[in-house]
Amino acid sequence: MEIAILLFDKITALDAIGPYEVLSRLPDAKVTFIAKEPGLHRTENRMLALHADQPLSDVAHPDILVLPGGFGTRALAEDEQLLDWIRVAHESSIWTTSVCTGSLLLGAAGLLNGLEATTHWMVTDALAAYGAKPVSRRIVQQGKIITCSGVASGIDMALTLAAKIAGPEWAQGIQLGIEYDPEPPFVGGSLRSAPASIVELVRAHAAELS
Amino acid sequence: MEIAILLFDKITALDAIGPYEVLSRLPDAKVTFIAKEPGLHRTENRMLALHADQPLSDVAHPDILVLPGGFGTRALAEDEQLLDWIRVAHESSIWTTSVCTGSLLLGAAGLLNGLEATTHWMVTDALAAYGAKPVSRRIVQQGKIITCSGVASGIDMALTLAAKIAGPEWAQGIQLGIEYDPEPPFVGGSLRSAPASIVELVRAHAAELS
Repeated sequence: MEIAILLFDKITALDAIGPYEVLSRLPDAKVTFIAKEPGLHRTENRMLALHADQPLSDVAHPDILVLPGGFGTRALAEDEQLLDWIRVAHESSIWTTSVCTGSLLLGAAGLLNGLEATTHWMVTDALAAYGAKPVSRRIVQQGKIITCSGVASGIDMALTLAAKIAGPEWAQGIQLGIEYDPEPPFVGGSLRSAPASIVELVRAHAAELS
Repeated sequence: MEIAILLFDKITALDAIGPYEVLSRLPDAKVTFIAKEPGLHRTENRMLALHADQPLSDVAHPDILVLPGGFGTRALAEDEQLLDWIRVAHESSIWTTSVCTGSLLLGAAGLLNGLEATTHWMVTDALAAYGAKPVSRRIVQQGKIITCSGVASGIDMALTLAAKIAGPEWAQGIQLGIEYDPEPPFVGGSLRSAPASIVELVRAHAAELS
């Protein structure tokens, strides 16, 4: 089972590493980190570099495609070479997935037209602009395309996908293996549940950064 | 606020990236990925390489120390140069933390003697061998030392720590920013809650790998 995870400059690391930590534990999993340019790719804050081992062309037909998000997706959404690669990979994939603003790349590739999809709560308008129908569920499946909401949701998405691929027992084993028994210290990890003052705080901080 | 996250060969990536994704969003956070040897360090399964930008000696006195886990901790627990660095860093740190088997490094450095601590559920005996008192809580604080259970628990630990450092509003902002509103597909992410058959499955698989 060939799993390709896209890396790029200004990625959000957890978008990629959450699904990696789950999907790499599937039977016969082979995860490859790919990028337009192999080598180091830094996160949005420049504090971490992840290494892409292979160029896109080396993994033209992954069984599972994972598109993480991050500020870097803005530039990639206009990169026809990348979008072409996504279209071709999607033609033969078993599952095509995205985390957070990774869904904007699916949108830009024309793959979400008329479909329900999700992304980080701050950019649902951008998703709609690609013809998708944004919904507020954490994980959204439409055929073989699965999109999920912001950053940390990739763990839930990948465990859900693991159960589809290898059965619920194996997926439960992965969940226990990575001790995913969340105890978030606060309610309010979603737009639905967060106090308005916290939403405003995050929006103001994001505006500063962009 | 200088935050040092240790990298090493055979690391579990999410142990490091969960806390990174949270702590890098603290006000004035400066996260540095460090290692005995700067450069690329591969995960246990060899599928991912993370980059250490600086050697241990460049960050002798971090405000926050994060020790991730992974099979690689077995070799590091006998590495006196690394253990010395941990002891010195701990002397001046504000917080000394570990995720998963990272706590075995704190134990090997002699910092957990007589203290309550936790680790991945499969290696609590090893923790006890260092004189620690293993407890089954997800996050265990003893003074300025915080240990947490396996892999994914680093996210909960880091959010809890973020609230201590920057206040609950900022921590809630981080939680909303990374959309950490977990929807694990199964109960059973901990030894307490998992069916015996799943525990056995994970133990058998781990025995194969080691």
